[in-house]
Formats: sequence, structure tokens, C-alpha cells
Amino acid sequence: MDDDVQLLDTTLRDGEQAPGVSLSPEQKAEIASLLDEAGVSVIEAGSACTGPGERRTMDRVTDLDLDATVTSFTRGVQHDIDLALDVDVDGVHIVVPSSDRHVEDKVGTTKEGVLESTAELVEYATDHDLWVEVIGEDGSRADLDFLEEIMVAGMDAGADRFAFADTVGHTSPEHAYEAVSRLSQHGPVSTHTHDDLGLAVTNALASIAAGADLVHATVNGIGERAGNVALEEVAIALWHNYDVETVDTEQLYRLSSLVADATGIVLPPNKAVSGDNAFAHESGIHTDGMLKDERMYEPYAPEAVGRERRLVLGKHAGRAGVEAALAEHDVTVEDDDLAEIVAKVKEIGERGRRVTDTDLLAITEDVTGRDRERNVELLDLTAASGNGTPAASVRLRVGDDERTASGTGSGPVDAAMKAVREALRNVEFRLDEYHVDAITGGTDAVVTVDVTLRVGDRTASVAASDADITQASVEAIVDGLDRLLPADDPTGVPADD
Amino acid sequence: MDDDVQLLDTTLRDGEQAPGVSLSPEQKAEIASLLDEAGVSVIEAGSACTGPGERRTMDRVTDLDLDATVTSFTRGVQHDIDLALDVDVDGVHIVVPSSDRHVEDKVGTTKEGVLESTAELVEYATDHDLWVEVIGEDGSRADLDFLEEIMVAGMDAGADRFAFADTVGHTSPEHAYEAVSRLSQHGPVSTHTHDDLGLAVTNALASIAAGADLVHATVNGIGERAGNVALEEVAIALWHNYDVETVDTEQLYRLSSLVADATGIVLPPNKAVSGDNAFAHESGIHTDGMLKDERMYEPYAPEAVGRERRLVLGKHAGRAGVEAALAEHDVTVEDDDLAEIVAKVKEIGERGRRVTDTDLLAITEDVTGRDRERNVELLDLTAASGNGTPAASVRLRVGDDERTASGTGSGPVDAAMKAVREALRNVEFRLDEYHVDAITGGTDAVVTVDVTLRVGDRTASVAASDADITQASVEAIVDGLDRLLPADDPTGVPADD
Ligand SMILES: [Zn+2]
Ligand SMILES: [Zn+2]
Repeated sequence: MDDDVQLLDTTLRDGEQAPGVSLSPEQKAEIASLLDEAGVSVIEAGSACTGPGERRTMDRVTDLDLDATVTSFTRGVQHDIDLALDVDVDGVHIVVPSSDRHVEDKVGTTKEGVLESTAELVEYATDHDLWVEVIGEDGSRADLDFLEEIMVAGMDAGADRFAFADTVGHTSPEHAYEAVSRLSQHGPVSTHTHDDLGLAVTNALASIAAGADLVHATVNGIGERAGNVALEEVAIALWHNYDVETVDTEQLYRLSSLVADATGIVLPPNKAVSGDNAFAHESGIHTDGMLKDERMYEPYAPEAVGRERRLVLGKHAGRAGVEAALAEHDVTVEDDDLAEIVAKVKEIGERGRRVTDTDLLAITEDVTGRDRERNVELLDLTAASGNGTPAASVRLRVGDDERTASGTGSGPVDAAMKAVREALRNVEFRLDEYHVDAITGGTDAVVTVDVTLRVGDRTASVAASDADITQASVEAIVDGLDRLLPADDPTGVPADD
Repeated sequence: MDDDVQLLDTTLRDGEQAPGVSLSPEQKAEIASLLDEAGVSVIEAGSACTGPGERRTMDRVTDLDLDATVTSFTRGVQHDIDLALDVDVDGVHIVVPSSDRHVEDKVGTTKEGVLESTAELVEYATDHDLWVEVIGEDGSRADLDFLEEIMVAGMDAGADRFAFADTVGHTSPEHAYEAVSRLSQHGPVSTHTHDDLGLAVTNALASIAAGADLVHATVNGIGERAGNVALEEVAIALWHNYDVETVDTEQLYRLSSLVADATGIVLPPNKAVSGDNAFAHESGIHTDGMLKDERMYEPYAPEAVGRERRLVLGKHAGRAGVEAALAEHDVTVEDDDLAEIVAKVKEIGERGRRVTDTDLLAITEDVTGRDRERNVELLDLTAASGNGTPAASVRLRVGDDERTASGTGSGPVDAAMKAVREALRNVEFRLDEYHVDAITGGTDAVVTVDVTLRVGDRTASVAASDADITQASVEAIVDGLDRLLPADDPTGVPADD
């Protein structure tokens, strides 16, 4: 593997072409800054020909004065290069058709025509001091002789490099290897891969092995259809397996989260590097192994990508995992009790549920007989909404007190939340996390609300389910407060512990 | 590539070890049946040693009398093989430690001990007529000489095959190739890869190239941490690039959807083969290309995996795409109007929104001046919920009528839905889809509700956003009805058209 492999990020161009994604100028600037901080060499900021809105956004990025080379996508026409010059990018990707399908059917030109215009456009761009990469669109379905001819025409005219583009995610690693090997004889080669066959990473690595030294990628692999190769996956694979450092890997999780939030494209829990479960360990056997040796079931430490390990309890839970989870709450139990707690945790897990802190502590109290009175209890909830201002009232038992309060909000859930805050107005608590899984099925689907509450430096994560989202939300919040407020004086300012 | 490559599905074992996943016996039986129908050769149905619940589930699968070889995971102890025999599987995977870490630190044995017990266990299993695969756990971090020794010990004792296991998703394709090449000298080799580095497919293909002929995979790539290699990706890549048919690819989307529903593990829109956008085309240029030649921007037809192509409108929309979308609603417009409609569609898209059918038709009416009166309008909505029965009322204008109605339901949204149905009780409509994206942030987050309504054989997909989920839901439903009910007699039974 070439030590000098670099990454080109095209989240802001190819990534943004994903259906339903549109990034604001602020979002693009924020993502570009973090990419630059992480050490990405080239940032494709957009496609200047798309329109004035896109150009304003690209201006925002070029104004940041980043270390990275900032570029624009351009179609194979001079006007596009002029537009790119207007937004002051450092370089351009000149896209020319290369497969018969694209040369003849899409663009309606000839191979000679492509070679001529490639040379002209590259000369024009380099005359204007632009860094130039020529991309042979649909290159993986092109005749390799012709692809070489385009590259040579471009390089002779002064281009910096040529990109082998698997535009439709069609190619095999064998073909990528052959194509890049041949192209590399004529100068520096980039690789642009898509994931339609699940081969985006495979083909990127095959290209690198054949001599490519710049990998086009997008954060989270977003892009049209099945998307592009994921930047974080290429970066971590090169680092872990080949000792090639393309970026500061510790920024990868931040980058991934930022792009997921900005685009609204969710990450599956099993996404490599950045998925919720990427460093979560549930299985009983595995968790025991993990506790003995952190690397037992991990290829690399989560800290390498800016994350932390997570122990999750569920149906595969073992003694060691449950013991460790209880220890986090300063709870120790007898061996017999532990066995019973493990059995009950597994039971919840077998119903397909994640076992939350509250579940675990409730089970433990139950098993040990060390029953604890509830500190905070929801006695009543009423919420009304519609065309007027949403309002809600709650009646809570807090220690020996009963408190009734009301609130208004942007919806019934928000109003009820305000009512709870009003009822407990001398208690400082924060809602660190409020999450409702996607709801599908029907309007009567049961909704599970997950919350993480914080009082001082203590947190509790709680879940509640109901067909009524307001009810489930308030139950979860009240359950969390019940856990966190001190039994002796639930309404006072809690002592640190 | 070996033409005889086959797939082993371990969704029901390794896949089910994903945190928070627990499949019921019915779900496991349904998934196993579809895997069998698709032509998967080996189905690992579970791990008989997990407990009586798991064994009952496995019984359900073995009772199906499938064509596939149905197997159980077993740890390296005889008792596990006995338990597997109890549930009547055809074969077992005997898992023995292979890396120093696992041999010494985890299991606390010696290499000689591993070789001896491997031979004994394989003999015991084959004596009981079981098909036997020996898995060297953490094989990718094991000394290759020792891995070969384990395989030889197993094969000499009568095992059918040996699996190269990249248990922690650590290896490179170069190492996988070398390991499998060496192991293949001693008999048939399987490959078991995980995606922690994004290399699950890469390493599976490298293993096949080196001689492996059975690929362990899970549907949707679910599994611990970053999961296993995705069955649908291996199958489609082998089919498309190497003409190797492992399964009936037309079942892949059904399989993927079934497993996503059963496990609750969401698919990202950009998931290869089965993601929402895998065959969606938004970009203007691309859509124009698509309309000229379906293969222009697709590596293979969506029908190959049992799906259909989808044209999506957004900020990259072009004339051809918008024209095609309007044609689906039997609407044709003048050229001038089309340009204006395209511009407005792009504008919505630039705000990061998917352009729904309703959006498109509303824009079109606006532009063409062919204004249409709203047939159905929401005048008032009131919803109340809490400890009592959730109730809601709506006041609708339907044609020239005003209708007020109330309803109760399992929550305020459901109650409001019932009220709408009551107000329009002579109209038959179905809610084909009701979807709310995951809600994160706070209790005041704006939620977008997407619905697809059906009246007769006509459908309309509509979205509405509000901080109040009840309000957004009712607005979306009323907007959809407004589109679907005939203007001349919105309250009558609509005519087919
Ligand atoms: Zn691309
Ligand atoms: Zn595994």
C-alpha cells in the first residue's frame, strides 16, 4: 500500500445528491471545517453550475480559507469552469463521458470529440491556475483503451490527475485493479466508487493496491442510490490494516454524527465506525471476555475514532456484564441474588427489549427485597391540543407532597414537560436525551420513548412505551426523576454523591 | 471464482446477537422459510446451549423440514452437541479458540488441548450423523500454522469443513486470501467476516478468490457491533460480477424487509440492494439519462432483487423528471409552465425537503392557474389525553358542508384519526402508510408525518410538519383526502378513474 494515499471528500457534492438532502450554507461550512480539521486533503464543495444558491454556499466554503484544496464539480463545458472560477475554488473536476453509453447515447458526441474537448477544457482550467482532475464518467463500463486515451489527453494538456469512476457501482475489484494499473502508467490516479453491489470499499482498496493515491468518499457513505464509499470506513481500514494515516481518525465519529444530523440520513446501529452498536457488547460470553481483555472482541479501541465502549444488557446477558452494570450504580449484590437478576434481565431481553438502567435497578430491588419507596410518582396527566395553545397538567406525588402544575408548549408533549418542570420547580434537571423511534404501522402504534435525565453529575436512562406519545414521554421523565432525586429529600437540591 | 460458492445464513444466530434483538419462534420460522425458498444452502438456526426458549425456537425451524441444512452453533463442549441433537438439527458448528488471546486468556487451555478436544468433539458429532463445520474463533488473529493444525485435526476426525473466522472484523483482504489459500489445501473452507472496518464484503470476496466455497452472512448485515457481511450484498455481487448464482436474487428485497421488520433494525436509505434510495433517482441530469436508457445510471435492474425503480423529485429535478412525475397523475402542461414548475420544485428541494405528490400538484395548479378549490379542509382540531380515554374532535369543511365529529382512540393521534373517519363516514379510505421519523433533540422538536392514503385504486403521499404530532398527523391525512376525493362530490363514493 502506498503511504501517500489521501482522501477527497465529496459529501458536499456527490453526497448531497442523495434524494431529499439539501445542506444549508451554514451546514456546508461547518462540515467543511471539520473535514479540514480532520486532515482531508481535497474537499469537493459542490457543483458551481447548479445555480446561484449553490454558488453562494460554495463561496461560504472558499471564504473559510481551509488547508484543504477546495474544488467544484464541472460538466465538460467551459461555462462551468467560469462559474467555478467565480466562487474562487482551488480546483475543478472536469467530468467527461467515457463509456459508449455516455459518449453516444447521453452526451451525443464521438470519442474524438471527447478527447478534443477534454484537452481544451483542461488547458482552459490550468491557464486559470486551477488544480485539475479529469473524471471519466461511467469509467468502469468504458473501453479501457479509450479511458487511457482520455487520461493521456488530459495529462498532456496539464491536468493534475485522472479519476477512475465507478459511477453506477457496477465494477468488480479485479476490473478496478486492472483499470487503475493501466491508468497509473500515465500519472496520478484517483478512485471514485459507489456501493450498489456493496463493493464500494472493496473497489477503493483494489484501486489503491493498483496505484490510486486519492480516494473519493463521502461521510457515512451518503450519495445517490446506495451511496458512495464511506470516508470513515476507508480511513479506518487504511489505518488499522496498512498503517496508512489519511486523517485524524479521532475526528471520525464527530464527523459522522455531524453529517447524520445535517442530512437527516440515519445511521443503522450496525454501521461500521459510527453506528450505535459498533462498540456495544451484549452477548454474555463476549462481555465476560471483554471485561478480562478489552481487545478480546474488538479490532481496535473505540477511542481511536473518538468514541467509548458500551456494555448493553439483554437476553445474552451474563453474570459479569450485570455485575459491571450494577457497579456503575454503586450497587453490589450477593451471588444468589445476582443469578436471579441475570435471569430476569435475560427474560426482558428475550421479549426483544433493551434493558435500561431503571429496569435493572427495579429488578435488583425486587430480587434483594431491598424495596425502595418511589420518590416521585405520576398520579394524573391531562393534555389538550389542537388549534389553540397546547396545554397540559400533571399531578405528582413527590415524597409526601402532592403537587399539581400546568404548562403550555409547542405540542402536548412539550406542554406536559413544562408542567413537570413547574411541579418540581426547585429541582434542577436536564433532559440529556429525548428519543422516539420512527413510528410506522398505524396511528395506534405503540411508541417507545427513551430519555436520559441528568441531575448534577448523575444520569438515568429510562424507557416507557404507550400508544400515546404524551403519556409515554411523561412516564419516562417521571421514572427517571424518581431514580435521581434523593429519597430523604426528593424536592430539595440533591447532594452530590 | 468458484461456480459452486454457497451461502450460509446466520441471521438467526449471529444476527440475533445484535443488542436489543430477540426473534420470536414465529419470526424465526418465517425467516427460515423464506431463506430456504431463496435457496440458501445452510441455515444456522441458533445456539442450542443458550436455553430452553432458544431450543423451542430451533425446534420450530427443524420441524419445517427445509431443503437447507439446518445447524446449531455449539461451544467446544460435548454437552452443547447433545443439546443440538435434542433439537434435531442436521449439523453443528463446533467453535474452538484459535488465537493466543482466546486459547490462553479466554478459554484458559493450551494449543495441544484445543487440538485434542477438536478431534474428540468432531468424532462425537459425526458418530451422531451430524454435518460438522469446525470454526476457529478469532482465526484472523491466530497463528496460521496453528489454524492449519486445528483444521487438519478436525478434518482427520471427519469434519465436513473448516471456517476461517474474522470474529472481530479485524483482518485485511490480503491476510484473508493468504489464510484461506493455506487452509484450502486441507479441505473445504468457509469464511465468516464482520464489518468493523467496513471490510466484510471485501474479505468475503478475498476468501472466495482464495478457494472458500461457503460464505457465512446475515440478512441486512445485522449482528454484534458493526455486524456480519450482508447476505444480499454477497449474493448480488457474485451474481452481477462473477455470474455465480447462490440464491434467487428476486427474493432479496422481501428477505431484507422481513428481517428489518422482525428485528426493528432500520435500513439506511443508502443501503445497497434494499435501502429506500437504492433505485431512486433524483438528480436532474441523471433522471433525464434514466428516461432515455434505464441502465444509464444503474448497474442492474431493480427487478433483479424484486424491486421497482423510483423517480424522486427534489432540488436537482429536471424537466424530464417533473414531466414524468406529472404524467403519472395524468397531468400535461405547456413548456413554459413546466419550466416554472421545475423551478418551484427545486426551491422546495433546496430547503432539504422531499417533494411529495401533493406538493407537485399544488405547484402545478398554482403555475397553470388551473386553481382548484380545496375539497376537504381542516377547520378545527381539539385533542385531549391523559389518564382517561384519549379523545379528539375535528371540524372539517367537505365540499359545501361543514362536519363536526369526535372519536376516541389509543392516543390523541389515533382519536383524531377516528374523528376524521367519523366525519367522512361515507367515504372509504385506507391509510397505506403512516410514518414519523425518529424524534430526537427535545420535546419541542418539529416532527414530520408522512402518510400515503388510498381511495379505491388511487393513492396520494403527503407530508406535514408541526411541533405537535397530532396536528401534523391530521393535517397530512386531510391534505391527502383533499387530493383524492372528487371535486364534484367529495362526500360521495368516488368514481374510479
Ligand atoms: Zn459519484
Ligand atoms: Zn460472528
